[in-house]
Amino acid sequence: MTISFGDGVLDALIADDVPYGDLTTRLLGIGAQPGRMTFSARGPMVAAAVEDAARLLERAGCAVARTASSGESLAAGAPILTAEAPAAALHRGWKMAQLMVEAASGIATATRAIVEAARAADPNAAVAGTRKAMPGAKALSMAALVAGGAVPHRLGLSETVLVFAEHRAFLGGEPPAETVARLKRGAPEKKIVVEVGSVAEGVDWAAAGADVIQTEKFAFDAVADLAARLKAAELPAIIAAAGGIAAATAGAYVAAGARVIVTSAPYAAKPLDVAVRIVPA
Amino acid sequence: MTISFGDGVLDALIADDVPYGDLTTRLLGIGAQPGRMTFSARGPMVAAAVEDAARLLERAGCAVARTASSGESLAAGAPILTAEAPAAALHRGWKMAQLMVEAASGIATATRAIVEAARAADPNAAVAGTRKAMPGAKALSMAALVAGGAVPHRLGLSETVLVFAEHRAFLGGEPPAETVARLKRGAPEKKIVVEVGSVAEGVDWAAAGADVIQTEKFAFDAVADLAARLKAAELPAIIAAAGGIAAATAGAYVAAGARVIVTSAPYAAKPLDVAVRIVPA
Amino acid sequence: MTISFGDGVLDALIADDVPYGDLTTRLLGIGAQPGRMTFSARGPMVAAAVEDAARLLERAGCAVARTASSGESLAAGAPILTAEAPAAALHRGWKMAQLMVEAASGIATATRAIVEAARAADPNAAVAGTRKAMPGAKALSMAALVAGGAVPHRLGLSETVLVFAEHRAFLGGEPPAETVARLKRGAPEKKIVVEVGSVAEGVDWAAAGADVIQTEKFAFDAVADLAARLKAAELPAIIAAAGGIAAATAGAYVAAGARVIVTSAPYAAKPLDVAVRIVPA
Amino acid sequence: MTISFGDGVLDALIADDVPYGDLTTRLLGIGAQPGRMTFSARGPMVAAAVEDAARLLERAGCAVARTASSGESLAAGAPILTAEAPAAALHRGWKMAQLMVEAASGIATATRAIVEAARAADPNAAVAGTRKAMPGAKALSMAALVAGGAVPHRLGLSETVLVFAEHRAFLGGEPPAETVARLKRGAPEKKIVVEVGSVAEGVDWAAAGADVIQTEKFAFDAVADLAARLKAAELPAIIAAAGGIAAATAGAYVAAGARVIVTSAPYAAKPLDVAVRIVPA
Amino acid sequence: MTISFGDGVLDALIADDVPYGDLTTRLLGIGAQPGRMTFSARGPMVAAAVEDAARLLERAGCAVARTASSGESLAAGAPILTAEAPAAALHRGWKMAQLMVEAASGIATATRAIVEAARAADPNAAVAGTRKAMPGAKALSMAALVAGGAVPHRLGLSETVLVFAEHRAFLGGEPPAETVARLKRGAPEKKIVVEVGSVAEGVDWAAAGADVIQTEKFAFDAVADLAARLKAAELPAIIAAAGGIAAATAGAYVAAGARVIVTSAPYAAKPLDVAVRIVPA
Amino acid sequence: MTISFGDGVLDALIADDVPYGDLTTRLLGIGAQPGRMTFSARGPMVAAAVEDAARLLERAGCAVARTASSGESLAAGAPILTAEAPAAALHRGWKMAQLMVEAASGIATATRAIVEAARAADPNAAVAGTRKAMPGAKALSMAALVAGGAVPHRLGLSETVLVFAEHRAFLGGEPPAETVARLKRGAPEKKIVVEVGSVAEGVDWAAAGADVIQTEKFAFDAVADLAARLKAAELPAIIAAAGGIAAATAGAYVAAGARVIVTSAPYAAKPLDVAVRIVPA
Repeated sequence: MTISFGDGVLDALIADDVPYGDLTTRLLGIGAQPGRMTFSARGPMVAAAVEDAARLLERAGCAVARTASSGESLAAGAPILTAEAPAAALHRGWKMAQLMVEAASGIATATRAIVEAARAADPNAAVAGTRKAMPGAKALSMAALVAGGAVPHRLGLSETVLVFAEHRAFLGGEPPAETVARLKRGAPEKKIVVEVGSVAEGVDWAAAGADVIQTEKFAFDAVADLAARLKAAELPAIIAAAGGIAAATAGAYVAAGARVIVTSAPYAAKPLDVAVRIVPA
Repeated sequence: MTISFGDGVLDALIADDVPYGDLTTRLLGIGAQPGRMTFSARGPMVAAAVEDAARLLERAGCAVARTASSGESLAAGAPILTAEAPAAALHRGWKMAQLMVEAASGIATATRAIVEAARAADPNAAVAGTRKAMPGAKALSMAALVAGGAVPHRLGLSETVLVFAEHRAFLGGEPPAETVARLKRGAPEKKIVVEVGSVAEGVDWAAAGADVIQTEKFAFDAVADLAARLKAAELPAIIAAAGGIAAATAGAYVAAGARVIVTSAPYAAKPLDVAVRIVPA
Repeated sequence: MTISFGDGVLDALIADDVPYGDLTTRLLGIGAQPGRMTFSARGPMVAAAVEDAARLLERAGCAVARTASSGESLAAGAPILTAEAPAAALHRGWKMAQLMVEAASGIATATRAIVEAARAADPNAAVAGTRKAMPGAKALSMAALVAGGAVPHRLGLSETVLVFAEHRAFLGGEPPAETVARLKRGAPEKKIVVEVGSVAEGVDWAAAGADVIQTEKFAFDAVADLAARLKAAELPAIIAAAGGIAAATAGAYVAAGARVIVTSAPYAAKPLDVAVRIVPA
Repeated sequence: MTISFGDGVLDALIADDVPYGDLTTRLLGIGAQPGRMTFSARGPMVAAAVEDAARLLERAGCAVARTASSGESLAAGAPILTAEAPAAALHRGWKMAQLMVEAASGIATATRAIVEAARAADPNAAVAGTRKAMPGAKALSMAALVAGGAVPHRLGLSETVLVFAEHRAFLGGEPPAETVARLKRGAPEKKIVVEVGSVAEGVDWAAAGADVIQTEKFAFDAVADLAARLKAAELPAIIAAAGGIAAATAGAYVAAGARVIVTSAPYAAKPLDVAVRIVPA
Repeated sequence: MTISFGDGVLDALIADDVPYGDLTTRLLGIGAQPGRMTFSARGPMVAAAVEDAARLLERAGCAVARTASSGESLAAGAPILTAEAPAAALHRGWKMAQLMVEAASGIATATRAIVEAARAADPNAAVAGTRKAMPGAKALSMAALVAGGAVPHRLGLSETVLVFAEHRAFLGGEPPAETVARLKRGAPEKKIVVEVGSVAEGVDWAAAGADVIQTEKFAFDAVADLAARLKAAELPAIIAAAGGIAAATAGAYVAAGARVIVTSAPYAAKPLDVAVRIVPA
Repeated sequence: MTISFGDGVLDALIADDVPYGDLTTRLLGIGAQPGRMTFSARGPMVAAAVEDAARLLERAGCAVARTASSGESLAAGAPILTAEAPAAALHRGWKMAQLMVEAASGIATATRAIVEAARAADPNAAVAGTRKAMPGAKALSMAALVAGGAVPHRLGLSETVLVFAEHRAFLGGEPPAETVARLKRGAPEKKIVVEVGSVAEGVDWAAAGADVIQTEKFAFDAVADLAARLKAAELPAIIAAAGGIAAATAGAYVAAGARVIVTSAPYAAKPLDVAVRIVPA
């Protein structure tokens, strides 16, 4: 059990799609006929949100047997779930359940690719997904991210200390060491993360005591340079590389010295097709 | 005023991102300092959701001057809005407002490309976006779709008659003419749309009286073939081409005889960068 | 399965009626005693919302056996459902479940009368219920309307094209043919409905290409006149008669040539009594 | 300020009617044109919900000048409000605001008739509306009831002590005096109301100490008989007459001795027409 | 069954505590292991909210066997419930279920002490809890209050008539008898409660016809004085003593003549510890 | 701007208290009279939630001038806010606004006492409030906690790594160093917090690499012993002392070596009286 939706969220998704009943099924008069619906992976995918999709179908009135789990790598054609129900219930839940799995599996699969690239370079590397998911789809995106093997970078502003240049603009030139000391005094149970725009800035904030230096759109060699300087200065800060990093570049950033890859890339992954088959039962 | 969000939706987006206050800004003690935030287009984009983003910032406590409108084509660097507020309010609304514009403008820009491709082939062609938006992000996706110049294909199951093969499997071999007659009797104010998998099926349902034949993953020449046969038979049904159509292929489908391009492609468009600048005021 | 309520809606109805427990039952100390409650039709009625009422009672803690279905014509005295539960649960769900069935069956019965009157004149006639239900009671009203045999006219402004005089006031004298052409270009998958105030207007808009001419408060012979002129001009537009039409007049409008009766009358139907009996079990 | 809706309720009403924008207005391209909308009473009515309707229009984007107040008796043609806004905002709020006033004024007008009938018989008589409003429309119904001059009988089960026969079935023959004593001990700040089915029962419960005897479907003379016996026995209990009482019979019940008329009749009142006029401004 | 929470409320409590999954359990990889959790009373307590806590755990994915009921007096060490589930589900529901029982049992136990003190002085005395619960925690507080043996004083402003000095300030010197007469005319089914600040005021309002005189922060002998004067004047009004009354003083107020103790004290009671034990199963 | 409530939350608080209008004010007929309400501190307090209370009053229809801020220490009698409005609006918002300030200021004042005690022992010490607030009142509690000078310990399970014995029971004897290594690999941007029950356990987990050792109900000298051993072993882990710590003992724990005091004590603080005065204006 990882991230999952309350019944109210699932009901709201159904209600948005079928607010006043299913006109076509009703006019055709086929709603009471028993049927069976199967979901399977069209191509290879890391499955995600399949438990929630199964619950959505149950709330739409189906009996569901699930044969895949979130986080699992599926081959093309692999079965995901089977739902048995009157045709009305199948049609009621079909598309929204399919969409959940398709969107989430797209994100999970893209996440997995970055995770594998990063870990190929360093088995201890981690991939952290930003909070920049599509507005309204954060819970689904986070569930998919976790299914793909990453961890949320920060879930919002209330639970992490992450200092941007947009904060420092208001600090009136306070020396970094003083800023960090204030932050540590205020939040001794949190790591202090500082996003920087240059190697020099990174060294300064690490020297000031920051726990994590988040590099924003650094080139590989800039990350390597920063890592070398931190090591030379015996500064324990770790490097989190952010800004436009995808599966193709994650390994190089890790190889350059990043301990964490911070990415929003998976949220824009294309949905992966789920093949749906509906037949009378 | 097109599609827009209620205050409750905007507040929920803020609350999800900042459920218990902004820890970093609070610990830094900078929240009360006056600041100014500007949003501008990083590259060319069709803007979307900018009115809603402006309202979200207002609800976060900012005074906002908006300089772009949804549906407008912006050049790289074009200003979108300026917000004036204490630093706490700027940071409170910043990222969610940015995300809304980025995600929606990505969808709107991708939509516009398909619309322009379709209309280049036939100025009367229409582009219709499916209901297959990311679960949770349907309102934002629909607003962006409309900003891009498309129209919703169907908003859900309650308001359109669209007969899939997955319905016909339960009809027990009823002749199409009888099915269509029943549908027209039941819903005389709706067009009867039937999704078909072959030219022959399309001709049959058009002959049976369907108003719109939705072709699912037809090749160009299959659409052209269908169009020719409908014309030859003097059947008034129009063709809506669906299934994997993007900007690159939309024109060809229209040229082949499709009157409507039905697409989900824009919902998976990458967000387009909004440059954000925050400074003390 | 037609239109139905999510659990959250049913829980909200219970919570509104019993926000902080049932004072009388608690003070009497009878809550734990087993009891049985039966619902039956006081007079003849077309039942509606009985599935939802049964679910509401289940959510209140009752075991329910339902013996009538929405859409079914019940004779006076016909049983609807039986609930078994501790007295506290029976009292918790009683009145709200009763109210749902009474209100919905009132609407369904009134709807059925109009449907039968219309179909007596023309078996192909349809009755369409407007969106003008009591604010807050739209879902219940639509469920009842469908149980009565009608179809929703439009569920809201987002999914139909219906041009009122209140729109045309802003069109600056644009010729109808141009207006209709623009609408068809924009929404090729929708029928274009135009509400008119005179026969001449109706002929004009039909000639301009409108699919449905909605007559607002026409006399029978005006509808007949319009039908004759459309026929003479070989215009395919159908007539939807609206404005104060009830069971007594529906047949005459259909006989005059209306293919659709558009009505809000059922929403104001009086609730029909459900006899409730509660006894110890 | 009496009963009123939160912004969230008003927004939900708008969102249900216009979930994804106003298709017709958008396709016509008239949304930005300035317009003016006026509401006036078609016939005489006791206005209700006009403040809420005005706020709903404001939330839809209109500037509103209200010229009538809830509870006020309006003559035919009397102005209610004027809204100024772009056509998109007028169309966005129009129908829902109109529906609110029409439905609520229907209830208020029906309520007022009962109140006046009751008070004509006894200026101290009160009219109490039951909780049996249309499910989903309770707040609107209560606001209208109060505008009409009545008072809620009970808002739900949590705040009043009202003993039905359906409770007494579980009391195992406990003497009324003991039951009432227990209730008074438990809820010393509440009046004890007992619904009875016969004069004898009424006398018994009044003798047992009940504060209010609610007669269910008594004939006038049965009420008079009960009143006489209570007076003869010097019992202070008041009589609340319930069950199918309308304006035509309320006076007679009061004249017979009822101090309170308990009624659900107004909730089924027909909506009263509000004339709406929309013009370019 | 007394006061209880809808599923949506329970889900919201879980979602607030675990919005995006349980990070620790997930990283430890222990979520799927079967476990057993027991709740027991650390010290003596009047149990409350245990049914709701059990339901919350069920919604978190646990199978629950409950061995205590709300309102029951538990000895130290007494078992409350046992939950069996995978470790992920136990951790998901653990703390929120525990908090509910701890907070509610604290309130119930404090309530019971006041009730027992009051009833020791007069078995007919009642304890009424005000509406002044912690904002957001009213339902839990009311459930606990009732479990402790008290009754809600008033649930809000819509269902009781309680005249404060803050109302009388606007009455322009209207004689109390006139005020009371107006209130009784308006709300004949409610008792008229008047809060007073002195014995003289209390006598005046009782003489004017008030049903309940609520004394605000009277000394014991002032209550006794008031009681004596009411008795001497043969006024039937009862006395409800309010203002800072706790278990230690409740008996004396009742002995002095108060029939009702009105108190907010229990809402600030400290939560009572529930011992929780989680082990692999 | 720290933690604050959305309009929907404030509206819900009002609606719960006044769901169907204010019966007393309406019956008295005083609602339209202009009035003025002032809030002031009855005794010394650290104010909290005053901005939200002011907004609640505004939403109830009042014009508010606020003269105190959350976090500010107020002397007895210090003014907090003044509201001007018709009497109906004052009564509508009065009690809920008062309750918010009273409850929150009680928590803030208790928090401040612990903070001052801790900082007297070590100016760098921090006080962290647990997530164990009254269910339903977490947002108000967190706002008050922050106003008092503390920081949230953890807001829920999704954003911190805190290993309890209840987790370790499922680890099957995995060596601490391996557990910590897995956690750091998974969540490199988080501090690893481990709650321990003995000094030896604390030393073990610190040696294993935990960043924070949370001592559960340690005596002062056990904390001192742990601190000494960590120092001797040159382990950088900091000590967070938890379990029944209040203002009286916080200083001693800090003096013994705790860097953080983890406490739930403030959530059970008694509300602090706000004097309210309402007069005609």
